[in-house]
Amino acid sequence: MTEVKAELVSVGTELLLGQIVNTNAAWISEQLAEKGVSVYYHSVVGDNFNRLAEVFLEAGKRSDIVFITGGLGPTEDDLTREAFQHISGLHIEEDQGTINKMEAFFAKINRTMTPNNRKQAHVFQDSKVLHNSVGIAPGIIVDYNKTLWVFMPGVPREMKAIMTEEVLPFLKETFVLKTVIRSRMLRFIGIGESQLEHNLRDLVSNQTNPTIAPLASEGEVALRLTAKAENNQEAEQLIDQIELKIKKEVGQYLYGYDNVTIEKTVFDLLKQKHLTIASAESLTGGAFASKVVEQGGASAIFNGAAVVYQPSSKVSALSVNDELIAAHGTVSKECAEAMASQVKKVYQSKLGISFTGVAGPEELEKQSAGTVYISICDHNNKHYTERFQFNGDRQTIRNRAVKKAFELLFYHLKK
Amino acid sequence: MTEVKAELVSVGTELLLGQIVNTNAAWISEQLAEKGVSVYYHSVVGDNFNRLAEVFLEAGKRSDIVFITGGLGPTEDDLTREAFQHISGLHIEEDQGTINKMEAFFAKINRTMTPNNRKQAHVFQDSKVLHNSVGIAPGIIVDYNKTLWVFMPGVPREMKAIMTEEVLPFLKETFVLKTVIRSRMLRFIGIGESQLEHNLRDLVSNQTNPTIAPLASEGEVALRLTAKAENNQEAEQLIDQIELKIKKEVGQYLYGYDNVTIEKTVFDLLKQKHLTIASAESLTGGAFASKVVEQGGASAIFNGAAVVYQPSSKVSALSVNDELIAAHGTVSKECAEAMASQVKKVYQSKLGISFTGVAGPEELEKQSAGTVYISICDHNNKHYTERFQFNGDRQTIRNRAVKKAFELLFYHLKK
Repeated sequence: MTEVKAELVSVGTELLLGQIVNTNAAWISEQLAEKGVSVYYHSVVGDNFNRLAEVFLEAGKRSDIVFITGGLGPTEDDLTREAFQHISGLHIEEDQGTINKMEAFFAKINRTMTPNNRKQAHVFQDSKVLHNSVGIAPGIIVDYNKTLWVFMPGVPREMKAIMTEEVLPFLKETFVLKTVIRSRMLRFIGIGESQLEHNLRDLVSNQTNPTIAPLASEGEVALRLTAKAENNQEAEQLIDQIELKIKKEVGQYLYGYDNVTIEKTVFDLLKQKHLTIASAESLTGGAFASKVVEQGGASAIFNGAAVVYQPSSKVSALSVNDELIAAHGTVSKECAEAMASQVKKVYQSKLGISFTGVAGPEELEKQSAGTVYISICDHNNKHYTERFQFNGDRQTIRNRAVKKAFELLFYHLKK
Repeated sequence: MTEVKAELVSVGTELLLGQIVNTNAAWISEQLAEKGVSVYYHSVVGDNFNRLAEVFLEAGKRSDIVFITGGLGPTEDDLTREAFQHISGLHIEEDQGTINKMEAFFAKINRTMTPNNRKQAHVFQDSKVLHNSVGIAPGIIVDYNKTLWVFMPGVPREMKAIMTEEVLPFLKETFVLKTVIRSRMLRFIGIGESQLEHNLRDLVSNQTNPTIAPLASEGEVALRLTAKAENNQEAEQLIDQIELKIKKEVGQYLYGYDNVTIEKTVFDLLKQKHLTIASAESLTGGAFASKVVEQGGASAIFNGAAVVYQPSSKVSALSVNDELIAAHGTVSKECAEAMASQVKKVYQSKLGISFTGVAGPEELEKQSAGTVYISICDHNNKHYTERFQFNGDRQTIRNRAVKKAFELLFYHLKK
């Protein structure tokens, strides 16, 4: 078939009350656009039997695929299955696989499974049950009245897992999609969005296929190259050609592709070079350490962190010289460097990195919120220290400091 | 009239491509809920004449008020007016006020007004033109076929200004809104959604006003009580009554109301009791510390953390006895308790809390991913230690451990 028409139905009264934003719809739409599936409608409807049934009827008339999220939980106001059964007449049956999974789960956490939980195992006759790798309620695909109906939980984490692992591969088999759309993300750090756009302005404006879309996120910027072609190979070639031109202009800021993060990139560099690191954190309060530990196998490169949020603990936990603190204050180059070299000693790592500054909102030691010192102490005990002035609220300042540290480590390690 | 039924139509292909998230719908819905207007549907449709007309027709049939955002701009693919004219037959005329405003604007920036800009002054015959205090395109209200049609620009800033300054006051005059809707959120921790729903099932199923809606989020669950009444006081009374009944059943799990978080609740309890805390973190890698430091003024209750990700650093940074580790392993009650009492000493705090376990995906010391020990060491050096088995991927296990710690601290401190 040439074009696949799809629509999304999000179920949940909390959406209609404006208590949560419908991020699921945007995410699913983006995934489908990349696969060449055209999304023509989004609808949101509450946990109401009649309105659900009515919306499903309408959707079935006009779309080849209907994606339904939410209303599959164990509680009484989860009515998605019931409403669809009402319009389709399909029997609901219990999926034994899911029942087994639930019983194992409740046994594992030593809780008894309440009866209403069984509802989460309800699927339709002749439906395909979609494995939920991060939760209990499975997804369901059922072919009814020339339309493909895809049911997924409303919890974003579970929906995304089922969509990625089950639904998208299934769609790829089922529909032979004529035009392929391929995207590649180029990730840059250490250059601002406007600077990047400025350097590439001629390239971007004369460019139609692939398209070049700049995307700024906290402390870094990415370019999404999207090519349409008859097949993947052709699309990839188009992307390769434009990537070469981009690299000529701003290649020195490129750190990775697609879903690679700067954190992962730094992690890999440390691993390659057989280096270990430890952090001494004041205003960041362990946020840097936590980011590092997000990586599986962090133990290969990460020894630990001292979160020394109080001046006293800088002394007691890292034996930073209290005369140094008295002389220069905790928000100082001197304190940052002492923290970096001390945490190396205490945690027996090859590199040390430290954060000290003012998260705000109040100023500290007469220094304004956003003032942050970051120091790297390398394996030869040489210090690389910089002072930054970040803008934003408390959380933003802390996040920017952590992101900046990965940027500094990236350029330090790739030398 | 007793109930006003409304729905939202958001116009824009960028929404269907997932390039932007539909935050307008959530914001408008929240505003309307507070005014007692019931929103029954959200729809999103692209910049397509026929599909727009079709969606407008459907909306007009089922709603008293239809809010339409987007598609009012000057460009070719802004088709909202044209599609509505097609179904209503209403004449489009130029609003002189808007024309004057635009001419003044372009004069001010010394630019000549391009012809396509005049389109932004197009309104319907007999419609009410809504002043746009932050942009050019005005909003429009027109009464057609027993439905009130409200047109606003899609730019959130402009939509919000018009909604607040023009639409909401107009609705208040037009509909004597008899009913007010009030919501209260009850927040519980230490009980699962299905268990809560099970304990309250009679209450919930026999309950119409206020309604009781369970909402589960990571590691906790909330109940939203929503009452309709003649006035606020009456609504609050209805909510108070049902809250009492709920407390009889599950009051021991209630930790707070509305936007209060468990983290903030624990923070306040520590402050009240003049207690300070420090954490020793292995698998959580500083995530607990970072959560605490999110609270402004954390220094009043938080001394710091030792992120001891390696067995060696448990010894070097916290001088946990290495024979203890050799005998029991790091994933053990004994190690957890040693970490909790040692971090208290090193960081000179009144309480210590520790995390040790297996974040996964691989098992560790022959223990499966998700096995976590959390220990609290109180000001009398008494330990409260529990072993948990969490499910999910690496990040989920770490987040659940941190959330669980706040739960344990809550029950420990409220004694």
